[in-house]
Amino acid sequence: MIQEEERSLLVIGAPEHDADAYHLSGFLAPDAVICLRVAGKTYLAVSSLEYGRAEKEAPVDRLISHDELGIIRLARELKSGARAYAAAVANLIDELGALDSPVAVPPDFGVVYADELRARGVTITPEGKLFDGLRRAKTQGEIEHIQKTQEAVEAACAHAVEILEEAEVAKDGTLEWQGETLTSERLRGEIDVELLRRGCSADGTIVAGGPQGADPHERGHGPLKAGESIIVDIFPVDLSTRYYSDMTRTFVKGEPNEGLQEMYDAVLESQEAALSMVKAGVNGKDVHNKVAEVLHEAGYKTNVHDQEKGKPLTEGFFHGTGHGVGLEIHEAPRVSLADDELIPGDVISIEPGVYDPKSGGVRIEDLVVVTEDGCRNLTEFPKRFVLE
Amino acid sequence: MIQEEERSLLVIGAPEHDADAYHLSGFLAPDAVICLRVAGKTYLAVSSLEYGRAEKEAPVDRLISHDELGIIRLARELKSGARAYAAAVANLIDELGALDSPVAVPPDFGVVYADELRARGVTITPEGKLFDGLRRAKTQGEIEHIQKTQEAVEAACAHAVEILEEAEVAKDGTLEWQGETLTSERLRGEIDVELLRRGCSADGTIVAGGPQGADPHERGHGPLKAGESIIVDIFPVDLSTRYYSDMTRTFVKGEPNEGLQEMYDAVLESQEAALSMVKAGVNGKDVHNKVAEVLHEAGYKTNVHDQEKGKPLTEGFFHGTGHGVGLEIHEAPRVSLADDELIPGDVISIEPGVYDPKSGGVRIEDLVVVTEDGCRNLTEFPKRFVLE
Repeated sequence: MIQEEERSLLVIGAPEHDADAYHLSGFLAPDAVICLRVAGKTYLAVSSLEYGRAEKEAPVDRLISHDELGIIRLARELKSGARAYAAAVANLIDELGALDSPVAVPPDFGVVYADELRARGVTITPEGKLFDGLRRAKTQGEIEHIQKTQEAVEAACAHAVEILEEAEVAKDGTLEWQGETLTSERLRGEIDVELLRRGCSADGTIVAGGPQGADPHERGHGPLKAGESIIVDIFPVDLSTRYYSDMTRTFVKGEPNEGLQEMYDAVLESQEAALSMVKAGVNGKDVHNKVAEVLHEAGYKTNVHDQEKGKPLTEGFFHGTGHGVGLEIHEAPRVSLADDELIPGDVISIEPGVYDPKSGGVRIEDLVVVTEDGCRNLTEFPKRFVLE
Repeated sequence: MIQEEERSLLVIGAPEHDADAYHLSGFLAPDAVICLRVAGKTYLAVSSLEYGRAEKEAPVDRLISHDELGIIRLARELKSGARAYAAAVANLIDELGALDSPVAVPPDFGVVYADELRARGVTITPEGKLFDGLRRAKTQGEIEHIQKTQEAVEAACAHAVEILEEAEVAKDGTLEWQGETLTSERLRGEIDVELLRRGCSADGTIVAGGPQGADPHERGHGPLKAGESIIVDIFPVDLSTRYYSDMTRTFVKGEPNEGLQEMYDAVLESQEAALSMVKAGVNGKDVHNKVAEVLHEAGYKTNVHDQEKGKPLTEGFFHGTGHGVGLEIHEAPRVSLADDELIPGDVISIEPGVYDPKSGGVRIEDLVVVTEDGCRNLTEFPKRFVLE
């Protein structure tokens, strides 16, 4: 069997929006590039606009301009820019004498490219696991990028805590800050601006109070209230490095409503149990089962113990324990019901949660690097539930 | 020939990040949905998490849950979530009695889906023009969304003008604002925060001073200076509607350096010439040629008059005149050297520019809706070059 480093790989995409294109080429650009690996060597084709910068920045074996590949001429002939890209790649593979080897592509590789390449004699095989695997073990440089994003996350969360602490409680329990009602939207705006000031862009920051916190697709809206749990889930991308980070904290302003402190304590206990067992070689499924076991023993429903077939669980612990984080906010591996063995360098979230559609939810999420004998927590933010 | 409304169409993607999936389904969601159109009827399959909201919001003929399609069972059988999606679609097409009709997909439709569908007897044909065409003529509602984004753009640009006006000129010509050097990064940060306060997210706002303005991929860095042209190109997305807008203005603080006022006047004249000829039925290529003609007569190189084969032009007017704007920042039609006839409802940018790698660049960009007898300019921001 051919060794994985020797497999032919191909990605066509704009590195700023295509994690595989960025990762394989090491070159960040807004427009589509072609990145081909054949016999362990990496070939990168960029437009003439990008050529000068790519010469300085792209860590590839051979840099090629679109002109050199004749892409403009091919586009005229084939009446399609996309088919021209693929035809140019087929010519390059032929020139490299590699037409006989199958070429692995990511599963979302465009069908228009695949059809053209196949018509020209190239065997194209979509291989999700292979590409996921390439991005799993993070380098020291990648971990530093994620840490930089995480610093912005923590600064933004600290700002949110400050606001919640400064907030006053009106007679009806609604929070007020600087003379106006404190809504989810307003607190999210404060968090997102703080992130942006640190070069990070957020799309979907969750500030969900009370029952809204129990709906995983609810980003939160309307006035926040004392006594209710407030889930704050922050997961921006750094616009210069394109690496994500991900952290969740749950807060309550003043005395927690009935049952919330117990929920918080159980979730925290389950998270600590998970963190203590994460290390290379452990299966994500076992970590997930451990979390479920702790929460089950604390009296909550879980998707391990209480899942009925075809009927989604809507209370208790009903999502995965965690997921990989890197150039995408959700990437391999999963820490869930699925079978995924952890490897050194995986950066994963550990984020158990318990939800009650009537009262609300609690989720606590840290980001860790998996090591040979444990894990290193990239999250330094304190776990305080009650804010006075 | 089958009428276009009767063609079978298929998109699989997360509507928040896949413009075709959002446009065909009318339903905005962060996770992948399946949207199929057969015999003029639209079928949308969403996860159980999204089902309740989709029932209220999705304007489709039939809403289906992933459970109903048996996706979880198929994923177990096929050991692949992606293949399960495709297998479920094949079953649905079969159930609808439409296995005989070819199914058009966007060119970037994932090869893993295409392979599975084809293996199950579905004919899949990538058809970029067809999908581009579906999104071209904007509805009144879509135009209102774009206008809302444009309002944020203009507010942010007004803030930038305020800062440039308030700025002081240091002895070496560097701009200073509120006691500190005014850099591209700082002005961009001010613009982006202003956008975010209005619910819009920017990724790549250009604030490029002096020679940096002549490099189309330079977003701008370092201190801004009096006398140099400063290109400000703002093109955010509204995070709630997901529609973009796009506007460029060029400013100079104080007396323009030699040649810049002439460049500005020529670019403005070419833009006005273009705007006056835009209407349905006109070819984008003719608009582009008109811009080039005006700039050529003013003594600048253009990609119509001075392009040498295989040698990219790096001064004068070397990019397209404009592009469609909607759910993507660059979409059909093009207003460029390519052949694209304008239709009513196209929303396009008109953005001529002239660049000199030694001194800098000037670009002026408005966004217009093409109508039967002309165009409606969505941009109200004044065109002032010199700021005192």
